[in-house]
Amino acid sequence: MAVFVQKFGGTSVGDPQRIARCATRVKQRVDEGHKVVVVVSAMGHTTDELIELSARVADRPSRREMDMLMATGEQVSVALVAMALEKLGVPATSLTGGQAGIETDGAHGRARVMRVRRDRLDRELALGRVPVVCGFQGVSTEGEITTLGRGGSDTTAVALAAALQVAEHGGCCEIFTDVDGVYTADPRLVPSASKLARISYEEMLELALLGAQVMHPRAVLFGERYGVPIHVRHSQRPDEGTMICRETPEMEEVMVVGAALKPDLGRVSLRRIPNNPGVQGMLFEAVAKAGILVDDIVQTEFGEIASISFTVDHGELADVKLAASQVLDRVGTGELAIEIGLAKISVVGTGMKTHVGVASRMFKALGDAGIPIHNITTSEIKISCILGKEHAKRALEITHEVFGLDRLGSRQAATVS
Amino acid sequence: MAVFVQKFGGTSVGDPQRIARCATRVKQRVDEGHKVVVVVSAMGHTTDELIELSARVADRPSRREMDMLMATGEQVSVALVAMALEKLGVPATSLTGGQAGIETDGAHGRARVMRVRRDRLDRELALGRVPVVCGFQGVSTEGEITTLGRGGSDTTAVALAAALQVAEHGGCCEIFTDVDGVYTADPRLVPSASKLARISYEEMLELALLGAQVMHPRAVLFGERYGVPIHVRHSQRPDEGTMICRETPEMEEVMVVGAALKPDLGRVSLRRIPNNPGVQGMLFEAVAKAGILVDDIVQTEFGEIASISFTVDHGELADVKLAASQVLDRVGTGELAIEIGLAKISVVGTGMKTHVGVASRMFKALGDAGIPIHNITTSEIKISCILGKEHAKRALEITHEVFGLDRLGSRQAATVS
Repeated sequence: MAVFVQKFGGTSVGDPQRIARCATRVKQRVDEGHKVVVVVSAMGHTTDELIELSARVADRPSRREMDMLMATGEQVSVALVAMALEKLGVPATSLTGGQAGIETDGAHGRARVMRVRRDRLDRELALGRVPVVCGFQGVSTEGEITTLGRGGSDTTAVALAAALQVAEHGGCCEIFTDVDGVYTADPRLVPSASKLARISYEEMLELALLGAQVMHPRAVLFGERYGVPIHVRHSQRPDEGTMICRETPEMEEVMVVGAALKPDLGRVSLRRIPNNPGVQGMLFEAVAKAGILVDDIVQTEFGEIASISFTVDHGELADVKLAASQVLDRVGTGELAIEIGLAKISVVGTGMKTHVGVASRMFKALGDAGIPIHNITTSEIKISCILGKEHAKRALEITHEVFGLDRLGSRQAATVS
Repeated sequence: MAVFVQKFGGTSVGDPQRIARCATRVKQRVDEGHKVVVVVSAMGHTTDELIELSARVADRPSRREMDMLMATGEQVSVALVAMALEKLGVPATSLTGGQAGIETDGAHGRARVMRVRRDRLDRELALGRVPVVCGFQGVSTEGEITTLGRGGSDTTAVALAAALQVAEHGGCCEIFTDVDGVYTADPRLVPSASKLARISYEEMLELALLGAQVMHPRAVLFGERYGVPIHVRHSQRPDEGTMICRETPEMEEVMVVGAALKPDLGRVSLRRIPNNPGVQGMLFEAVAKAGILVDDIVQTEFGEIASISFTVDHGELADVKLAASQVLDRVGTGELAIEIGLAKISVVGTGMKTHVGVASRMFKALGDAGIPIHNITTSEIKISCILGKEHAKRALEITHEVFGLDRLGSRQAATVS
């Protein structure tokens, strides 16, 4: 008898019919003789509707009151899912985040899980009941209702799975979503993309940061820290999805597990500025204050003179231009250049740590295709190239092909079985 | 500096504009230098929508899960009202029933308030903040979310007012609603009905049981038990409403404070049955099992033979007929008779305790108008007459007039000022 945590997102519980299907999914695991804890998000568009409602009442509602409001979304879901389970003859108990023992700090709207007190969950499980827990929320030590911010329900699920030691009990954390797993590339862009049977936490984290919507980076980090196996799978289809787990020696054999495309980037360059950490600090402080997320940063130095380039989403360019100009005014020297129409192609794989030649293989393939590369940034398990937007889709296809990603899914699946 | 509890019903917080008006109302009291605790119901039709949603998921959801679901309605309201107050510069903190210290028994869907722990409320008030509390809900000693059933928000308000000893602090419990007070009769039926400046708990209780929608009987009982002055007033108008309070000597001067009409009743009579408490027990047990609310009961005895008559709403007649027939079958003797097209006119007043001739004055007035009375029931402060439905409206008008109720409101107001 294993312990499973099953998480269903907002789309999966979007209406009574879908809720019934989720309940059936839970019942299957229970019928197999396993213990199950369910985590659910707010139904479909509930979160957006509540935000809109609050906007009609106040311009700048406090974070505490927003949490009080938002937490109702998941509470509606858990009650309905518990009712649907009971209807199928599966004893179930809905629990708020607080009732389920999820203790957070007091940072409303972006609280961190500090601790999970598992006594209530244990009690329900011992009674043969399925606890159905509100995702995305917890309770602070002061008894205040808090929410965990974006991706919070995934984090709740992984945190409960860690507390219940599902790995030690032969189970895992199942994330049911509207895609059937993690792909080597976005299948809408690369039709030959293959579904991965497994991926390491590190790789998943990089892909999530590159925009893979399948799981929130915070939840992946949580899974890595506590070694929780996370199974990402489709909520309405029975197929196996992708297991996110610790790196194994055989995973290191694979140099690249995924390729990603970020479209519509612009590059901001500050040239001929003093080579002085104070100037950089001033620049990125101004950019952060404007609420702009900066992508890759490249700095080049020539003695006392330096240049800094960084990429941002197209939509941010106007704000960045303003912030950067003000910094240049204060510095009193330097030039500002803005390029638009860029994109970023990245490849990710833990195998890069032990394999050489990944970067050169990628550059050669792009070069052979006549695609110029504007900028290169690398991390231990990632290589990114900035290039012209007009080449982006083809660059993604070439990269995907050169690393044999279209066949990776089936190769992995063969190893697993 | 007095302490006020202000309760706003579902219509009063039905949309962002109305919520803003409620907040203004609260701010007025705060600006007068008083401490205020706010209690709110779920917005407008939220409760009905949640019930409908649950019905689409399960036929017979458990009461516990219904409570979990329903409690979200008030939680949305408190967050929005707190936001609206903050927008007006009034520091406010929304609280769930549990956070506000409302402890109940574990009877989901119809829980009783066992205790109010006022430490959180005291803390917020000491900080100069307005606690905005979810009506209708509490938390059981096991930490489960409970709801108080119909009229629950009124009960929450009165319970908090009792715990905060508002009367001792020169305040009261203000119930803001969509009527501007308690009238001597339903103004839609009797246009000359006058608004009462005050009414005793006992009288209000009788009127509430007779169908006056203005306050729930349970909340009135609670107010009586703890001596909480309850001010019923209109949420959008500044006028004084009606104060529900302990009986004073001058209130006893008034024989009758209100007249009420219950339309569409049917009378069920069991004739020639054994005069034996066991038969009555069997009958009312069967009726209660069928979920039927019985109105007045009249029993007549002739030695070993008895007759029992009772009135029920028209809609219940088919079920009652079935239940009563089964009882007669078991008893083996007696006849069943059903009359339809009846109504009930009642007058209420604590003055009846010390004045004689109230009943005879009512009967004479109805007799003079040629209206036959089928049945009469009385309590210490109430007289009810069952009569033909076709005479009901006129009987109400006559009764209202004969006791001078159209002038009672202004006479009371004169005494108050």
